[in-house]
Amino acid sequence: NSKLKLFTLNSNTALAEQIAKEVGVELGKCSVAKFSDGEIQINIEESIRGCDVFVIQSTSAPVNEHLMELLIMIDALKRASAKTVNIVMPYYGYARQDRKARAREPITAKLVANLLETAGAHRVITLDLHAPQIQGFFDILIDHLMGVPILADYFESKNLNDIVIVSPDHGGVTRARKMADRLKAPIAIIDKRRPRPNVAEVMNIVGNIEGKTAILIDDIIDTAGTITLAANALIENGASEVYACCTHPVLSGPAMDRIQNSKIKELVVTNSIALDEEKLIDKVTQLSVAPLIGEAIIRVYEQQSVSTLFD
Amino acid sequence: NSKLKLFTLNSNTALAEQIAKEVGVELGKCSVAKFSDGEIQINIEESIRGCDVFVIQSTSAPVNEHLMELLIMIDALKRASAKTVNIVMPYYGYARQDRKARAREPITAKLVANLLETAGAHRVITLDLHAPQIQGFFDILIDHLMGVPILADYFESKNLNDIVIVSPDHGGVTRARKMADRLKAPIAIIDKRRPRPNVAEVMNIVGNIEGKTAILIDDIIDTAGTITLAANALIENGASEVYACCTHPVLSGPAMDRIQNSKIKELVVTNSIALDEEKLIDKVTQLSVAPLIGEAIIRVYEQQSVSTLFD
Ligand SMILES: Nc1ncnc2c1ncn2[C@@H]1O[C@H](COP(=O)(O)O)[C@@H](O)[C@H]1O
Ligand SMILES: Nc1ncnc2c1ncn2[C@@H]1O[C@H](COP(=O)(O)O)[C@@H](O)[C@H]1O
Repeated sequence: NSKLKLFTLNSNTALAEQIAKEVGVELGKCSVAKFSDGEIQINIEESIRGCDVFVIQSTSAPVNEHLMELLIMIDALKRASAKTVNIVMPYYGYARQDRKARAREPITAKLVANLLETAGAHRVITLDLHAPQIQGFFDILIDHLMGVPILADYFESKNLNDIVIVSPDHGGVTRARKMADRLKAPIAIIDKRRPRPNVAEVMNIVGNIEGKTAILIDDIIDTAGTITLAANALIENGASEVYACCTHPVLSGPAMDRIQNSKIKELVVTNSIALDEEKLIDKVTQLSVAPLIGEAIIRVYEQQSVSTLFD
Repeated sequence: NSKLKLFTLNSNTALAEQIAKEVGVELGKCSVAKFSDGEIQINIEESIRGCDVFVIQSTSAPVNEHLMELLIMIDALKRASAKTVNIVMPYYGYARQDRKARAREPITAKLVANLLETAGAHRVITLDLHAPQIQGFFDILIDHLMGVPILADYFESKNLNDIVIVSPDHGGVTRARKMADRLKAPIAIIDKRRPRPNVAEVMNIVGNIEGKTAILIDDIIDTAGTITLAANALIENGASEVYACCTHPVLSGPAMDRIQNSKIKELVVTNSIALDEEKLIDKVTQLSVAPLIGEAIIRVYEQQSVSTLFD
């Protein structure tokens, strides 16, 4: 095998340090700075010629900065004769723009896939894509890891009684089912609908939650509107307590206020996206995806199957 | 001919309005906004099916935001069945990263060219590329306009006596020569060199400037270090007054302070980059490239030669 080199860009250096430990290497030396006018300046400060290079970067906010850092880094690595350039993108930004929902919309998730390939990426390792179909946006290899086992293990360790796994919308039922399988629990679904246009949505709950400990699960929590309304509806409808969890804590705009003021007892997320101090409130528990990603990197490097990671 | 449609993104809407007037069309309706998490959301609000679409966007600061707006817009236009997608990029960001000056550097100017093509651009109209070689970074057609005639016409109208056109460095002599031809003036060159490592640079002036009105010309003025040092050296060496001009007023960091405190009497720039109120100080004159770009758009649309624009 050629040599493995691990680099991090600016989006999530704490996670990158943990991943480096898991893999058993030091992070490669490179500086990612800005010129006076805001243009990104990247200097790779060690030879990577002939190496299998892995670059860790979530395209979380500021997404356009983080994406451009990544594209420029890929260009630099390619031109510096890396053998392979492997992108480790725990959070894939723009994943929600994955189809034309209305006329003349862009499909930015596909654009991002094309940009990564054009820059010179050979392979992408990512986690819980908003739509698994985004895998098909790539012509290069993509390894799609799952956060559910990490979240499920955490709840397992809490020894909660009489739990029910709840999907906050119709789109998330498959995810809730996976979680329920792991925790040997039933599922329920928040069945939002708008009876007539310009009339408030009705929160109907499909499934039995009476007296149970509800665990809401989603892939992304962004402004937290959906999840906090769901939590409050669960309590109003007789759930005894409500936990919430997701893989990607985007947590933008009013999210933290909504979570703080909601009926959610604890919000469990991963570190696919770095969280500022002020988002790490008491209610929030952040689990590390470093062991999962570290193992995937080793497997890709040793050319074993990554998909068996979930067995 | 199919229908011409002109759209602007966020970098330079004032210029876009002027260009629309020159072309004799209204700007197309589209909204370029942000989701709560900072992801760009573009909505094209009128049909562009089968049209020749021109999108106006300088990739000035914030360069990564402006570039991503442009890439996403191209994607949306392509998917909405535009006949051709033509990019009007008065200022081409990342142009100074145009070669590997040191080991393991990216060539971001080439990456940008590839990204535009990948997104779906058919043609690019741009102005005073930092290096004309960047034209060769594209496999699609690129029209390269020149700011020199606009700047020269302005100085001509001032009826200055006994002028000399000065290049602030070795790289800009060809540009100074073009300006001098237009104004029928001699040239001079600031010949910076460092006698020994870690010793201050010496500003030597090649050419006669004694008692003359010097006009410094550059393509980009960014932090304004080079141009203000050059201006002061010219005065110290006997020039009677110093004007400075450039096509692209990047003007980042200490630029405005340096210009204000320098011996530069007037700084003449174009509106390839929009300037905030606080940069439009008395010393600064901004000329419009709208007539030049408007004519180029009409010629591209009518499939005539753009290069004759400089005759
Ligand atoms: N960053 C974003 N924040 C909020 N909504 C988004 C974002 N990106 C895309 N969308 C919208 O979210 C919808 C897709 O979400 P979903 O229905 O959950 O797959 C699409 O209609 C998009 O227009
Ligand atoms: N945005 C920027 N600001 C300042 N310097 C830059 C920028 N982009 C590239 N450079 C550097 O400027 C040099 C090229 O400028 P030049 O020698 O004038 O062609 C290269 O060494 C680049 O590393």
